[in-house]
Amino acid sequence: MDNVAATTAAAAHPHAGDPVFDLHVGGKMEILSTVALNGPDELSLAYTPGVARVCEAIAADPAMTQHYTWVPNTVAVVSDGTAVLGLGDIGPAAAMPVMEGKAVLFKQFGGVDAVPICLDTTDTDEIIETVVRLAPSFGGINLEDISAPRCFEIEARLKERLDIPVFHDDQHGTAVVALAALKNALRLTGRSPEDARVVISGAGAAGVAVARILLEAGVKDLVVTDRKGILNSERGDLTPVKHALAVDTADHFGRRGSLADALDGADVYIGVSGGTVPEEVVATMADDAIIFGLANPTPEVHPDVAHRHARVVATGRSDFPNQINNVLAFPGIFRGAFDAHATAITEGMKLAAADALADLVGGDLSEDQVIPSPFDPRVPGAVRTAVAAAARRDGVARR
Amino acid sequence: MDNVAATTAAAAHPHAGDPVFDLHVGGKMEILSTVALNGPDELSLAYTPGVARVCEAIAADPAMTQHYTWVPNTVAVVSDGTAVLGLGDIGPAAAMPVMEGKAVLFKQFGGVDAVPICLDTTDTDEIIETVVRLAPSFGGINLEDISAPRCFEIEARLKERLDIPVFHDDQHGTAVVALAALKNALRLTGRSPEDARVVISGAGAAGVAVARILLEAGVKDLVVTDRKGILNSERGDLTPVKHALAVDTADHFGRRGSLADALDGADVYIGVSGGTVPEEVVATMADDAIIFGLANPTPEVHPDVAHRHARVVATGRSDFPNQINNVLAFPGIFRGAFDAHATAITEGMKLAAADALADLVGGDLSEDQVIPSPFDPRVPGAVRTAVAAAARRDGVARR
Repeated sequence: MDNVAATTAAAAHPHAGDPVFDLHVGGKMEILSTVALNGPDELSLAYTPGVARVCEAIAADPAMTQHYTWVPNTVAVVSDGTAVLGLGDIGPAAAMPVMEGKAVLFKQFGGVDAVPICLDTTDTDEIIETVVRLAPSFGGINLEDISAPRCFEIEARLKERLDIPVFHDDQHGTAVVALAALKNALRLTGRSPEDARVVISGAGAAGVAVARILLEAGVKDLVVTDRKGILNSERGDLTPVKHALAVDTADHFGRRGSLADALDGADVYIGVSGGTVPEEVVATMADDAIIFGLANPTPEVHPDVAHRHARVVATGRSDFPNQINNVLAFPGIFRGAFDAHATAITEGMKLAAADALADLVGGDLSEDQVIPSPFDPRVPGAVRTAVAAAARRDGVARR
Repeated sequence: MDNVAATTAAAAHPHAGDPVFDLHVGGKMEILSTVALNGPDELSLAYTPGVARVCEAIAADPAMTQHYTWVPNTVAVVSDGTAVLGLGDIGPAAAMPVMEGKAVLFKQFGGVDAVPICLDTTDTDEIIETVVRLAPSFGGINLEDISAPRCFEIEARLKERLDIPVFHDDQHGTAVVALAALKNALRLTGRSPEDARVVISGAGAAGVAVARILLEAGVKDLVVTDRKGILNSERGDLTPVKHALAVDTADHFGRRGSLADALDGADVYIGVSGGTVPEEVVATMADDAIIFGLANPTPEVHPDVAHRHARVVATGRSDFPNQINNVLAFPGIFRGAFDAHATAITEGMKLAAADALADLVGGDLSEDQVIPSPFDPRVPGAVRTAVAAAARRDGVARR
């Protein structure tokens, strides 16, 4: 209806002429009807009086929600704006452009309808209660850019209380893609997860999740470092999440000390910490080393430096080969979970997604191609199929 | 991306072949991107790294939200599922088809993006806190199908706490359209609001709001009845909202008694109560009476009966003339409020919407046409313009 179109897009704006701001005028998404509403007859089907019968059917059998609403295809992208990109705690209003971008990617690559929800609270209990109250409106919850360690408790408690998929993408999206790339990098360098010595720097959302998925994937010799060095349970300053991780990693080998101590002779370095690793430390790694510097925009080890000491190098950036980009994972993971009407996203579903991504590289595997491009058109379908199948294997599928 | 389209729509469903259910498969709405995302360059504008600059601009000046996000064009349609259509307390899941329908109407008639939010709580404080926490994500809040008397407190407290429009459509949408139709009906029968004797049955959300807007529009001789008769402050059973209304209506005239007592000699009857008014009571109204039986699907006075005793008859139904349908009001009201970047919806904006609707009938005014059709293409624009202008007059416009 032309006479009621929004006016925002036509208005002048403060940063006119800047391509990024020009593109953002009016936001990046809209809601459209999938049904016709051109006259009283159509209105009486889609709205009163017809809609009352659909309401009654759902009231009698809540499973009818899965058929007759948009809920089973819709995810809430929930943030409190405390850990947005590399910008940190910028608050819910300023986080919205990222959440809209995420929503657009969900649709583009997963066919998932995603609603950005930026919350005006940073209190763990309040976030949890709010999401629980919203849950009847959504088929899944994607937590986004919520700072550690609150993100761990929020995700864990929401998973307990809700029977829909709950997924913190900063943790698990990163973990799935990093695992996929690492599997191929290990294959290329003649190693297996079981015999590789792996070091992760960073014990925030991404670091913890990457560590956990590597353990599940069979990595044995793993240490994780934070700003104070190797996590081990003799340190008195660890949060419960870090302490548990220390027990499952460095404690097995009695490893202590700094990141430099950890990297001496290591096969794999995965940086999710920010900061810079000095080249003389990088140089102490094993032959045919694998270096993933995932901080954005500045990798922990610049690719030029890394290539002097490593055989496989990956970053989070689109302007270097081997981009570890979450968009390879989250759209297909939710698409597959929704296809199966899954009640949760299991460890098996995440591992299946990583395997599907790794396998797509196939015969093209090389130092500069251990992970598919985010625009490889095979990616969403491959992840979707693998995740839905894993949901059925793991007993969380309703269809 | 064809290979990731949702599968829901293609699946067989339990009520296949029923046109209402066929139409509802997969829900009635979807989210689409308004920006292109076909390669790395576009991704770097709409998402990282470009988006970071938009986030920083909003963090530095929250008013930038109005330019660079979808927030200022987006309304949350919030319900707890306690008073859905005529179905009553059917819960949040079963309310969703109505909220989706509302969202679709918001877009179709107002160009407003609306997100249905059905809450898993009926507690007044919890609903308020939840909506306050969601508020950074939305340009306005449309409360829907929340039962009285909680709806009054929820709306009042949200209006106090939020600087965006908060509007309970079951109250104010109905009130605006009923006032518009009544103004024309009074004009047609040679009356003015000041000299008409008006009776409203029903003191729930709609009844209270219709009474309040009629008082603002100049009606002096007004009584409101509930199941126990005329609201007057000598009754000991009134809620605070009903008590305040009694003081402003029947108390002025010392009127007491039943609905039948109230209707004896009355010029106007507005039913928003359900139930049936006996014909012998209807027969006691004044000559050239005006009868609005707005209960759905069964009006308080069937039009066939009403026409034997009244000159102007309106209902909530599309299959009789003079349909009092909220869709005449809410899309244009929010569109106009959003055009003006209004911080609230004032009484002046509602009265302006009613006047705009009444004026559209113009020279076509007749017993069977006191209000425009919901599909009259002039409606949204007329309401929009009047509401935006009123927002500027009332000092709540930011543009």
